[in-house]
Amino acid sequence: MSTSKDHIIKSYDDELERLTGELVRMGELSVRQLEAAIDVVERRDERAARRVVDNDDAIDQLEQEISHDVVRLLALRAPMAGDLRNVFAALRIAADIERIGDYAANVAKRAIPLSMLAPVAPANGLATLAALAVDEVREVLRAYRNRDAEHARQVWESDARLDEAWTGYFRQLLTYMMEDPRNITPCTHLLFMAKNIERIGDHATNIAENVWFQVTGEQLDKQRNKRDLTSEPQPPIPGKPRT
Amino acid sequence: MSTSKDHIIKSYDDELERLTGELVRMGELSVRQLEAAIDVVERRDERAARRVVDNDDAIDQLEQEISHDVVRLLALRAPMAGDLRNVFAALRIAADIERIGDYAANVAKRAIPLSMLAPVAPANGLATLAALAVDEVREVLRAYRNRDAEHARQVWESDARLDEAWTGYFRQLLTYMMEDPRNITPCTHLLFMAKNIERIGDHATNIAENVWFQVTGEQLDKQRNKRDLTSEPQPPIPGKPRT
Repeated sequence: MSTSKDHIIKSYDDELERLTGELVRMGELSVRQLEAAIDVVERRDERAARRVVDNDDAIDQLEQEISHDVVRLLALRAPMAGDLRNVFAALRIAADIERIGDYAANVAKRAIPLSMLAPVAPANGLATLAALAVDEVREVLRAYRNRDAEHARQVWESDARLDEAWTGYFRQLLTYMMEDPRNITPCTHLLFMAKNIERIGDHATNIAENVWFQVTGEQLDKQRNKRDLTSEPQPPIPGKPRT
Repeated sequence: MSTSKDHIIKSYDDELERLTGELVRMGELSVRQLEAAIDVVERRDERAARRVVDNDDAIDQLEQEISHDVVRLLALRAPMAGDLRNVFAALRIAADIERIGDYAANVAKRAIPLSMLAPVAPANGLATLAALAVDEVREVLRAYRNRDAEHARQVWESDARLDEAWTGYFRQLLTYMMEDPRNITPCTHLLFMAKNIERIGDHATNIAENVWFQVTGEQLDKQRNKRDLTSEPQPPIPGKPRT
């Protein structure tokens, strides 16, 4: 079907290339949001935290635009097989990046009440978790950009480190809470913030699975050994004798 | 384009009807998972909790099948405009239901360590939150099945009640934690469980937005007044004097 419209529509490959570029940019935005959120936690800067929260709208907007581009691409091209797989992967990756942005905004949101409470030592631990998550997201975006399934699989495996770090941090926070009830409110915020960062890692692994599927046409084994042990029965936490 | 294949392919409307039916069934499964999760919390039944966690695989499997059906529908039919909107809505709703199932499984997962700790009074409060979430999901599925935009909008509005209930429960849990450090570990599990239930409500509102869009072609206003105030600065919690 060749119409005059073809002259103003870019080639399918060009469209897909542009879509990939949009997604990688959107991903980089979401990573910077997480970095900014951690920065405002450290600086205890309420005003900057609100800016990070507001910036999430730009990522949501991009996700909407990408969804529209995908619909347009599907409607104009009706792509088949491999091409359809690429377009679907783009749609799912966009949704994952949007969630990553949401989680980063959630971290920034809780930085606001946290900045109004007396500082607690474990707040510093958040940056370690975030650095792992930032690294995962950046690497999986690189794997996506290069259609590198093996690189994606490595990122997918590396999420175990973040899960372990989260589990350790969870136990550390509980210990602080037991030592002094004044730590409970700030540490509860930190618990949710840390959980948000751990979830960012899960979305990075989702993206890795999509890259793997897009390149190989096969599913990455879903039975990755999850290391979030905080919902497993825990050994008793030291530091606070049970009275 | 009429080929012999057309004889074995059901009409587009039939396909869409079948897809809707699959989605509603999948949604009902996820609601029952949440009900089962709350039931095991109340019965403190570790074995039953593990069964709920395992059952989540069936929902994940259904989501995969529905995604495949959507791909097939897109590939065979290349639907346009309104039809494409229906197919996209189905895809997004399937993803939301899958997340609801995940959150229900998360609640069941934390019921395991909770059943091994001494009982705490606020555990009963979880059922109240869950009842609101179950109601929201069932109603939004009904709205989807009937393509009833106004009903969807009502569900979307009603999520404010769940947000308020979550905020109240959050404060109650913090109070318990401050009263006795032995409450900290079980109440931390309850915090995450309650947050999972609150998130189920957010996914019900996502589904409502998709139903609205599917029927009207317009976006439901995204600026719904969120009532999760737990990440806002809190007034001091009574019951524990600051020492």
